[in-house]
Amino acid sequence: MQNFSYFNPTRLIFGKDSEVRLPEEILKYSKRVLLHYGGGSIKRTGLYDKIMKLLSEANIEVIELGGVKPNPVLSMVEEGIRICKEQNVKFILAVGGGSVIDSAKAIAAGALVEHNVWDFYQGKVVTDALPVGVVLTIPAAGSEASPWSVLTKEDGMLKRSFGSGYIFPKFAIMNPVNTFSLPDYQTSCGLSDMLAHMFERYFTNEKNVVFTDYLLMGAIKSVIELGPKLLKDTQDYDLRAEIMLAGTYAHNGSLGVGRIEDWSSHAIEHELSGYNDVAHGAGLSIVFLAWMRYVNKDNIKKFTQLFTQIFSIDPSMSDEEIVLMGINKLEEWYKEIGLPTRLSEIDVPEKVIDSLAKKCVHDRPNPVIGGFKELYESDIINILKVAL
Amino acid sequence: MQNFSYFNPTRLIFGKDSEVRLPEEILKYSKRVLLHYGGGSIKRTGLYDKIMKLLSEANIEVIELGGVKPNPVLSMVEEGIRICKEQNVKFILAVGGGSVIDSAKAIAAGALVEHNVWDFYQGKVVTDALPVGVVLTIPAAGSEASPWSVLTKEDGMLKRSFGSGYIFPKFAIMNPVNTFSLPDYQTSCGLSDMLAHMFERYFTNEKNVVFTDYLLMGAIKSVIELGPKLLKDTQDYDLRAEIMLAGTYAHNGSLGVGRIEDWSSHAIEHELSGYNDVAHGAGLSIVFLAWMRYVNKDNIKKFTQLFTQIFSIDPSMSDEEIVLMGINKLEEWYKEIGLPTRLSEIDVPEKVIDSLAKKCVHDRPNPVIGGFKELYESDIINILKVAL
Repeated sequence: MQNFSYFNPTRLIFGKDSEVRLPEEILKYSKRVLLHYGGGSIKRTGLYDKIMKLLSEANIEVIELGGVKPNPVLSMVEEGIRICKEQNVKFILAVGGGSVIDSAKAIAAGALVEHNVWDFYQGKVVTDALPVGVVLTIPAAGSEASPWSVLTKEDGMLKRSFGSGYIFPKFAIMNPVNTFSLPDYQTSCGLSDMLAHMFERYFTNEKNVVFTDYLLMGAIKSVIELGPKLLKDTQDYDLRAEIMLAGTYAHNGSLGVGRIEDWSSHAIEHELSGYNDVAHGAGLSIVFLAWMRYVNKDNIKKFTQLFTQIFSIDPSMSDEEIVLMGINKLEEWYKEIGLPTRLSEIDVPEKVIDSLAKKCVHDRPNPVIGGFKELYESDIINILKVAL
Repeated sequence: MQNFSYFNPTRLIFGKDSEVRLPEEILKYSKRVLLHYGGGSIKRTGLYDKIMKLLSEANIEVIELGGVKPNPVLSMVEEGIRICKEQNVKFILAVGGGSVIDSAKAIAAGALVEHNVWDFYQGKVVTDALPVGVVLTIPAAGSEASPWSVLTKEDGMLKRSFGSGYIFPKFAIMNPVNTFSLPDYQTSCGLSDMLAHMFERYFTNEKNVVFTDYLLMGAIKSVIELGPKLLKDTQDYDLRAEIMLAGTYAHNGSLGVGRIEDWSSHAIEHELSGYNDVAHGAGLSIVFLAWMRYVNKDNIKKFTQLFTQIFSIDPSMSDEEIVLMGINKLEEWYKEIGLPTRLSEIDVPEKVIDSLAKKCVHDRPNPVIGGFKELYESDIINILKVAL
């Protein structure tokens, strides 16, 4: 097991009507908040009104910044930073999913420095940040209890991330009812995203991680089992609750301690969504299947352990048969929840593969990605060809 | 799923030589610490010298209070509180296992109030506490990352607990090497204790907790598999590491969210260790087997799910057969790691059962224990008779 240092201070406030705790939690920090949100779905569902009423009754002053889009951008963050500085805002409330939360974290870190916030995405170390709170509406990215923020700089379309203990949200209000209105496709993309966060951690060559392996396999199995059930009954409170919790645990860091994680599929997928704006979860379903087909021979026992467990495949079959059957079952699962499994389904033609692979390793200190198997540009080309 | 509010801010600093981080972590809070420890094993192993050297080199002043015994007592805590108040100590470093940590937490809470610290164990709410840090040497109780403290008041031999977010340790230094010197019996008792913390959470009648059920079953399975391996090779770093991590996760609260936990076996066991000072983990092995035999019919599917998973029992057998086989396999497991499974092995005679059961429900607001199955005095008598 690798040495590690782990902490996660985010308070999860989970359940029906958990929004009522908002004023109490916010008032620990400030009486004036920047309310940060996305495209307006929270106004359609009534969540916006509910929050505004709660804050108003507690005499909390609200300054709004809506309009965050999927793959949040630097220009919006810069606007948020300007507002915080000019209007002396000391707390940011993110209402939405990963994009809104990542944008809020960027504002929180940028509001306390004079230099451009993009410096943090290029390696500058964060030493403080405004407190951020979350009302989660999309279970997927896990940003509600993570120290990570992903942002896109429009100039050059650079997508980069940074992590810092200072940007853990102080709290995450997690009311499963607030996810009832998610379209099926977005629910499925969320399932794929959280599953990917578990896969990226599960696939390691670290040998003595039985305890976290078993936790991860349990987590993966539950998403495999519950995901299709949820899509058949999207207004079921308990299924929504299970998936909401799974999304948070998938990425709060607790399941990945003591091991070198992989993350090459995420890196490759970023190029797909950069190319044609495919949803992150939909890109991940394609990439993970191809990645598994390409790398499984390098540590096949890691695959057979997983597949016999999550798909109850007969362990007396040969390793190769188990892996083939397991990947095929996973492909069926993605199809069952309505996600693409091939590049052709998302209009990524063979002719762009070389340039996507090049961009994927571009600008990195080493032209290699992946903790489970090191992948060079040629490997990424091969994986994308498998995905055709 | 039940509504819940969960957070856990303790920083886990895990791995070889992780003690070197001590000065940096302590100096965030104070340059003067109360060093709290147990019976002197840390002096035999060299850990004491190592810590003293690190603190001395960082010019951290150390005031010592050693001698904490298993089942820590109020009088020692009162002495610690007096030292902290008189000598203006602002940080407590607990070096040891659950008893030392629980004692340190009590001192931390008591040092900031004028009334007796025992009031907190009788329901008074903690509103502040000195910061506590931990160097863990016994993986068992999980106190290194929990908000709980258990203490015994010698007058009346009352054993009580309280929980507060203020007493989460700030950090826990977890170096598996520091557990190499544990005697086998203590290692086994630790395994039983962490397994019990998982069982107490697993056994719930809450229906929609698939995600945490799967995490818990993974955690339980790993202790069942790794425990006997560790006892065959107690100087294996990675096995010690796995078990050390399992002990922390078993009781850090993350696996029990959203469910009503049981805890009746712990309540019953407290009476056993109160009666004849049997080690907590050894009492738990006896009580859990008897509890399982007594209550399984009330929600048998919860048992069959667990046993088919952790012992790979053929799920096509009848529920009753699975449960019988599962409990027998668990009994074999306890025996394999050298723990008692019957009251006769720890000199608790049948004639004292009535008085133990009475004491177990005594002084409670309702004369009932257990979240999975409500147990009255008569049930506790029956369970202890099953354990004879």
